[in-house]
Amino acid sequence: MIQFCNRCGSKVSLVVPPGDSLLRHVCTSCGYIHYENPRLIVGCVAEWEGCILLCRRAIEPRHGFWTLPAGFMENGETTAQAAVRETAEEAGAKILVDAPFALISIAHINQVHLFYRGRLSSPDYSAGEESLEVALLSANEIPWPDLAFRSVALCLERYLDDRAAGRYGFHEAELAPL
Amino acid sequence: MIQFCNRCGSKVSLVVPPGDSLLRHVCTSCGYIHYENPRLIVGCVAEWEGCILLCRRAIEPRHGFWTLPAGFMENGETTAQAAVRETAEEAGAKILVDAPFALISIAHINQVHLFYRGRLSSPDYSAGEESLEVALLSANEIPWPDLAFRSVALCLERYLDDRAAGRYGFHEAELAPL
Repeated sequence: MIQFCNRCGSKVSLVVPPGDSLLRHVCTSCGYIHYENPRLIVGCVAEWEGCILLCRRAIEPRHGFWTLPAGFMENGETTAQAAVRETAEEAGAKILVDAPFALISIAHINQVHLFYRGRLSSPDYSAGEESLEVALLSANEIPWPDLAFRSVALCLERYLDDRAAGRYGFHEAELAPL
Repeated sequence: MIQFCNRCGSKVSLVVPPGDSLLRHVCTSCGYIHYENPRLIVGCVAEWEGCILLCRRAIEPRHGFWTLPAGFMENGETTAQAAVRETAEEAGAKILVDAPFALISIAHINQVHLFYRGRLSSPDYSAGEESLEVALLSANEIPWPDLAFRSVALCLERYLDDRAAGRYGFHEAELAPL
């Protein structure tokens, strides 16, 4: 997708820079190398009195499907701050994060999903701009067929398993194309 | 640093896009939004018979200082694959990763460092292009004053503590400016 140099506006070409082993978009004029790296999506499994906070998406992809509050980590924040911010933006809820819970690599879309586990500091929530609705749902109410993403389903499964076992671990997983 | 659009080569301007809350570099011609996100640096604490694999850096920053094998995660790979690749490139060693070990946010430089723990599959190693030398060092031999990065020191401290306690956890930390 990169056609022009961010720094000088000249055309880029795909070449392997000296000392590198991968093709990069390198400026044909100033030589600037445009590295592209995976993005971190950070979210949270947040509880209130045993129920889990879920959002129904108001945006694509997966408009109308349910997800954990999560989104692209921004520059200048920590992973925990990203989880807190995304939950505030999408679910209008204030949370306390307890610990990282799941790390899911999705290599074919250049993403890493990181979910924390945490708690709402009060039972207040409201749909943000990116959500149609927000709900606190019990384990029995989770809309499994209507979850937006496989990483969300995987995270919720592990979470409920761990909760039932009375011991939370840290889970690593990979998702390949279906 | 972004001055021109990657897609069409026109000038960008710093504006808050509709529905967003942060300043982004947006193309004044085609409207493309250039998001910038933190980068993941992935590495490994890899052992062979109780010794830990360390590399002395042949590149800046911190030329001449010691580090765990680690580097920028690439598109198209998982976090575990990144740890294996970086260890092969920098230390000429083949490793088996056991589990994620430490996640360290460094918000002021827009980085997240993720370290695995693992084992060399044989005691073979050699300095890659980015290393002056590579060594398997016992806990007593770790050159603490000559470590390249605070995240590396933090990770090694936690690792040796856990090893002494006979139980490896998953550690989260943040590093602020000194």
